Amino acid sequence: MGTWHNGAAAVVTLTFDVDAETPVLAEGRRYADNLMTMSHQSYGPDVGVPRILDLLEDMNVPATFFIPGWVAEHRPGLADSIVQRGHEVAHHSYSHRSPTSMTADEERADFERAVEVFSSQRIEIAGHRAASWGASWQTPSLVAEYGLIYDSSLMGDDRPYEIATNLTPIVELPVHWSLDDWEQYAFLPDPHIGSVIESPVKVTEMWRAELDGMRRYQCLFNLCMHPFLSGRPGRIMALRTFIEETLEAGDVHFARCRDLAQAVRDDASISPRRLVRPPVPPDVYPL
Amino acid sequence: MGTWHNGAAAVVTLTFDVDAETPVLAEGRRYADNLMTMSHQSYGPDVGVPRILDLLEDMNVPATFFIPGWVAEHRPGLADSIVQRGHEVAHHSYSHRSPTSMTADEERADFERAVEVFSSQRIEIAGHRAASWGASWQTPSLVAEYGLIYDSSLMGDDRPYEIATNLTPIVELPVHWSLDDWEQYAFLPDPHIGSVIESPVKVTEMWRAELDGMRRYQCLFNLCMHPFLSGRPGRIMALRTFIEETLEAGDVHFARCRDLAQAVRDDASISPRRLVRPPVPPDVYPL
Amino acid sequence: MGTWHNGAAAVVTLTFDVDAETPVLAEGRRYADNLMTMSHQSYGPDVGVPRILDLLEDMNVPATFFIPGWVAEHRPGLADSIVQRGHEVAHHSYSHRSPTSMTADEERADFERAVEVFSSQRIEIAGHRAASWGASWQTPSLVAEYGLIYDSSLMGDDRPYEIATNLTPIVELPVHWSLDDWEQYAFLPDPHIGSVIESPVKVTEMWRAELDGMRRYQCLFNLCMHPFLSGRPGRIMALRTFIEETLEAGDVHFARCRDLAQAVRDDASISPRRLVRPPVPPDVYPL
Amino acid sequence: MGTWHNGAAAVVTLTFDVDAETPVLAEGRRYADNLMTMSHQSYGPDVGVPRILDLLEDMNVPATFFIPGWVAEHRPGLADSIVQRGHEVAHHSYSHRSPTSMTADEERADFERAVEVFSSQRIEIAGHRAASWGASWQTPSLVAEYGLIYDSSLMGDDRPYEIATNLTPIVELPVHWSLDDWEQYAFLPDPHIGSVIESPVKVTEMWRAELDGMRRYQCLFNLCMHPFLSGRPGRIMALRTFIEETLEAGDVHFARCRDLAQAVRDDASISPRRLVRPPVPPDVYPL
Repeated sequence: MGTWHNGAAAVVTLTFDVDAETPVLAEGRRYADNLMTMSHQSYGPDVGVPRILDLLEDMNVPATFFIPGWVAEHRPGLADSIVQRGHEVAHHSYSHRSPTSMTADEERADFERAVEVFSSQRIEIAGHRAASWGASWQTPSLVAEYGLIYDSSLMGDDRPYEIATNLTPIVELPVHWSLDDWEQYAFLPDPHIGSVIESPVKVTEMWRAELDGMRRYQCLFNLCMHPFLSGRPGRIMALRTFIEETLEAGDVHFARCRDLAQAVRDDASISPRRLVRPPVPPDVYPL
Repeated sequence: MGTWHNGAAAVVTLTFDVDAETPVLAEGRRYADNLMTMSHQSYGPDVGVPRILDLLEDMNVPATFFIPGWVAEHRPGLADSIVQRGHEVAHHSYSHRSPTSMTADEERADFERAVEVFSSQRIEIAGHRAASWGASWQTPSLVAEYGLIYDSSLMGDDRPYEIATNLTPIVELPVHWSLDDWEQYAFLPDPHIGSVIESPVKVTEMWRAELDGMRRYQCLFNLCMHPFLSGRPGRIMALRTFIEETLEAGDVHFARCRDLAQAVRDDASISPRRLVRPPVPPDVYPL
Repeated sequence: MGTWHNGAAAVVTLTFDVDAETPVLAEGRRYADNLMTMSHQSYGPDVGVPRILDLLEDMNVPATFFIPGWVAEHRPGLADSIVQRGHEVAHHSYSHRSPTSMTADEERADFERAVEVFSSQRIEIAGHRAASWGASWQTPSLVAEYGLIYDSSLMGDDRPYEIATNLTPIVELPVHWSLDDWEQYAFLPDPHIGSVIESPVKVTEMWRAELDGMRRYQCLFNLCMHPFLSGRPGRIMALRTFIEETLEAGDVHFARCRDLAQAVRDDASISPRRLVRPPVPPDVYPL
Repeated sequence: MGTWHNGAAAVVTLTFDVDAETPVLAEGRRYADNLMTMSHQSYGPDVGVPRILDLLEDMNVPATFFIPGWVAEHRPGLADSIVQRGHEVAHHSYSHRSPTSMTADEERADFERAVEVFSSQRIEIAGHRAASWGASWQTPSLVAEYGLIYDSSLMGDDRPYEIATNLTPIVELPVHWSLDDWEQYAFLPDPHIGSVIESPVKVTEMWRAELDGMRRYQCLFNLCMHPFLSGRPGRIMALRTFIEETLEAGDVHFARCRDLAQAVRDDASISPRRLVRPPVPPDVYPL
């Protein structure tokens, strides 16, 4: 049955993508002209992150913060302030442009530039999450090539798995749209980043249903949140309650992604999967 | 009053469209470049289907799996593994391109290609569901011409009916948007396949309301699900509860589509309807 | 305080727009090629209307059915079958194209063509509702010119009012998006007619809140439904419960639109409003 | 800890944007052709505002009404009728075109024209909210230049803050999409101003969650409503209940924006922030 979950019914990784202005700028640098939009995004690192760090300390649970290189670069003390609280900082591209929107060379350059930012700040990184989860077929190899041990962008399972690459295999800690706060809370008219603002009552009800199902199937509950969204007062209180109830369940293990990835590596029952691009006949499917 | 429902207050057909990558590829083969998107779709046959098969065994209820020919072809043992568990496999086009997006010749070629795949795998098929339910006026005749006895793509009633064709009549097992998990759960930004991710609590509440109404009007509750959506832990647990409660009601009959279609054929109170394309004056309605 | 409500806390007009294929064809006659879509729309008159008529009889409440001329013409007995049950049939354009999408001459021709259809079927009509509620500034005058006494397309109040025209004033029975089943239940991918399918539990909760508020402010609860939507089993059962609870409240009056319009005419406290197109400076607002 | 909140757990500013026809006309003056749409918008000042004023009197709480100059100009007694009831009227642009959609000169001219309207009506204004919250980097300086003391368009915090300008600093009373009734209630098909109409039960549940969170973090609950939306019977009743429950909590202070802004100015613990447009490299982010 494997050892990666250390006997827990389910493993929870709380992850926060500290995107700040980058997802908006990736839609066009002209959006920097919009002061309201910029203030909407800066709320994340300025207000959301400190509040989240305090919550995690109150709850005594670890978390992983995926930060674009551009954000770490423009807010020099940010990444370190997170590491100092015992949490993990991980690679989330440089610019928050999706790999699938770039050429292979552009993806590599963007990837490397983020590595250099963290290196210059002496932030040791062990894993990667693609911007907008838009991983290309090259992404796993880049992760391996730059010495990282895990990725967290794919959806091929709801339990950790290993992916073969040209170099060493990497661990995949899969995500899912239903465990992302963006689709529930995000709203901006231009760029259009969301349609409906849901109540945290609905959102945590849905997450609770998924976690309870995962406790039956022994899965990874890899929750993706954004400080500019989940840092809001009503939402962070709902998250607090969600964590409290999960701790009370008593059979769930909270982990940083890097620690979980190491446990997956050490699990002899898991063998690397070779991912193959599906063959697509041009006479059947148009471009 | 008819015999098709065998005295039950309502009949339930659990159906699963095992689309895998096809609905995304039908939007453009370029989407095969997106590793995350491909992993999102492969979750269906890889993780969702085995979990669903186990649930059906636990509940001891039969189901029907509509599979595109392309999917059956690229995953050789898949269709047979479903049949071996006592369930039905049915025709769901070859490529998952909608008939209304193709010429009549293209629709026929696509239809036939799927027939050949199932024939080569010795999977006996008895019915058809159009990709995206996008049936053309030619579709019922194709169903009859290739020897199938039923279609399940239309919405002209909420009870089974018969459709006259150039050949023998076929049975229609009608579907509806409100009994499809896609509109409730599906989300991908590109191709854009959905806007809001709903909680399974809301979804099963809505399905419960519809089934309760159908028990009053003696209807067919033809539920359409997708393994890459409803195979997720929280959703499959909600489906489990839904099935359990339905079994407890005691007045609902679960059937495979093919068995229900046969019962409809045997019901002397049902006469074939002749479907006629509405006459549309060009001076009233623009193209 | 007026007499139009006859002392009731609120007045309810149940209205059903029997649109059948017309709203889809108004988006383009090419949609007639899509058999599923056509079946989706024909469900309204074929299945929804008889079920609704039975419900109204069970509840012993009157209703008003707005029917496009095209629909009445192509289903010759439909309008009469509704009148025979004691309900009102009213004018809902000929083609279900919005007046704001037509020239003044086109609107007039479409309006007149519907009048002729009802006249030829000996269906006496007294009121009008614009297709898609898209009334033009000419619409009220057309209503008066063709001898109708009320319109039901505007949103300038939540109580009936009178509108001055070039001829006699007409009564306006205002509608609202929040009292329309379309925005809650409608879904078709192409033409795109809706995004989210809501549960009838939410919908009737929202309608209940509005009716309760209207009972405080003595308003008109003018509910707009569509047989192809609200005729579905789960939704019609929710409507049944909604009507039952409203009847139990004991202070709400149900009326046909024509009877209410007559009561408004007879209410000396109501004076016609002169509607004026707002002056819009071209230097402030672009075209 | 500051003094701006006067010891309350949270401060509530009830604000109403009396937009009337302007947000629709800003999408194109051609929309004035649509009588229904115009009636939908005029409901705000005609029906919603008087109802809201009565509610505020019943609850004995103050509010702030942001009015576009065009609206005040075309409804001469409107602004004064609000001031006479003890509430605040504030600047909401002239035309309700977003600053980010205009040149700097256009924004200035629009800003000034609204100042002149209020001056000519002897309505003393102290604050500003950008149309659609679309503040440009110039907006805060305009606010200071025209002698206003606060703006309410940004989202950089959920507590009041000060912004440095070329002249004196101004107070920012931040807003947020989740505390706006527009995203919950607004619907029009053309111009498309919203997708889903939510129940007031959900909306006040969400606002309650946010206010409760804000009571923990001592924030500003700056609620933005629109009379054409929240003036509807069911919604205003939900607002009534929301205010009643908030008053009962006993630890929340209700204020007009101008009074709160003055308290922020008087709070020695708050220092002006210098807002800086983020540097955006053109080689990283496309236009």
